[in-house]
Amino acid sequence: MASSDITWIGVDWGTSNFRAYALDNQNAVLDSMESSTGMRTVEKNTYESVLTSQILPWIEGRDQVPVLMSGMVGARQGWLEAPYRSTPCGPPDVQDLTPVPVSDNRLRVFIAPGVSQSDPADVMRGEETQILGLLAQRPDFNGIVCLPGTHSKWVKVSSGEITLFRTWMTGELFEVLSQHTVLQHSVNKNAWCEESFATSARSMLQSNEQILGSLFSTRASDLLHQTGKDESTAALSGRLIGAECREALEWLPETHEPIVLIGSEELTRLYSVVIEQAGRSTDQLDVASATLSGLQAVSSAVIEQGVGNA
Amino acid sequence: MASSDITWIGVDWGTSNFRAYALDNQNAVLDSMESSTGMRTVEKNTYESVLTSQILPWIEGRDQVPVLMSGMVGARQGWLEAPYRSTPCGPPDVQDLTPVPVSDNRLRVFIAPGVSQSDPADVMRGEETQILGLLAQRPDFNGIVCLPGTHSKWVKVSSGEITLFRTWMTGELFEVLSQHTVLQHSVNKNAWCEESFATSARSMLQSNEQILGSLFSTRASDLLHQTGKDESTAALSGRLIGAECREALEWLPETHEPIVLIGSEELTRLYSVVIEQAGRSTDQLDVASATLSGLQAVSSAVIEQGVGNA
Repeated sequence: MASSDITWIGVDWGTSNFRAYALDNQNAVLDSMESSTGMRTVEKNTYESVLTSQILPWIEGRDQVPVLMSGMVGARQGWLEAPYRSTPCGPPDVQDLTPVPVSDNRLRVFIAPGVSQSDPADVMRGEETQILGLLAQRPDFNGIVCLPGTHSKWVKVSSGEITLFRTWMTGELFEVLSQHTVLQHSVNKNAWCEESFATSARSMLQSNEQILGSLFSTRASDLLHQTGKDESTAALSGRLIGAECREALEWLPETHEPIVLIGSEELTRLYSVVIEQAGRSTDQLDVASATLSGLQAVSSAVIEQGVGNA
Repeated sequence: MASSDITWIGVDWGTSNFRAYALDNQNAVLDSMESSTGMRTVEKNTYESVLTSQILPWIEGRDQVPVLMSGMVGARQGWLEAPYRSTPCGPPDVQDLTPVPVSDNRLRVFIAPGVSQSDPADVMRGEETQILGLLAQRPDFNGIVCLPGTHSKWVKVSSGEITLFRTWMTGELFEVLSQHTVLQHSVNKNAWCEESFATSARSMLQSNEQILGSLFSTRASDLLHQTGKDESTAALSGRLIGAECREALEWLPETHEPIVLIGSEELTRLYSVVIEQAGRSTDQLDVASATLSGLQAVSSAVIEQGVGNA
């Protein structure tokens, strides 16, 4: 690959990860990289230097290469706050992109908009691009998408648009419960018991067990019945994911298509176990594939409208 | 008060607070003190020196003064693990007290037992003493007791016994959500809006709003509608306490007596607002009064059975 073949660069810059793709004028991927240089690790005034150091081989000797970014990099706590577009909404137009002032002439940087919803109040940044990727691969998709993670999103997609969504903070909730509460004595994020996960999730789905009332059981059961960290950890995870899926499936309108899961391999596996226990089928789409397809879809719109060559 | 008039010392030693009472042979309070030297602040091997320094004026020149303690001091992470008694249970006997070895001859130290429940697995330490205090003041009480706090307990009391209980980690959940998650940008524990608290609690109680799905709204509503910290903080608190009360009232058997709240003035006020929104009436009992009466009740049993004079 010669860096001169690169027409544009796509970046998904989230809270925990940085993923970048170098693409040619046919939207084909010439190179890609991934690192854990998520926003969480970046100081407020160092975004530009972090970005250039990550993609340096792709921009050496170049001039004004367009870089299209999605994700939490456009949040108020990120590089530059990019506006949201309100639901219902499809792919962004060129005027929806936020140009980011940079001092390095080798780059022109744009941030794709997030999506907001007024009532219930909710926002997403990054997941909308993955949903565009799903729609690029399956243009006729109408149904529910679940994007599990630190902040899981459940999204209804109709006629190529995001029409309704809601966030469950399940990943973050598991993290703070297991690190900063009394449950830390019974939970270890590297411990696991598949059976305990499935049983706890099922109790949330099928016997109407109460989520808040069940949290302390993780500790009490370990104290009284020597449950141990493997079972306790998986039980906490199963309760939280089970309660999330129960709430989300009750909240979203009924659909017939399988629920599409977009996320890491491990998380989509766990969510598919729970969603199938709830009597619904699932499909899975790799998160990197969805992100890349989404960035390509946005870029196409943008290039067609002239920003890519401006 | 002369220290020679002190017959015994009662101590409630919890996670966040230390409360002590000096009593005479008629069980009358001669002196009392309170500090924030909760277990959280005490190093594992320093319990005895912390205790003696707190109650020094009461034990100078004395020999073998009985000290009766309740609370988290008897937990696995406390001074010495004291056994639990299983539900259903009333006041402890002398053989239920755990003697604590000390090197200081001025003291004889005992820890009162906690209460456990096998299914659903749950434990309490300290609240059982406050419930004994309620029963000392109202021997015929049959009904529900709610003890709000870091770990709120909801307890069914029948015929002088604790028959059923469950823990809601609401206080700790509020703390970690507001300090360690994305909600920290919208929540401040010193901010408040009474109307927002009541509205959010009511939405949990009356419109079947979903607790996990509503948490992120605290942040999104602030981002989109400039809700501000006063409303956001109170809304998070209202959602959590509202969801706790909904779950607890669904879970516990129906009773007709007012629900008795034992806790801090501020917390019992908030819980009474929510419980009354749920259509139930409440009574309140000051936590210090309940604790003292409970320690007196245990001590009476113990002294009658000879430990106090052994």
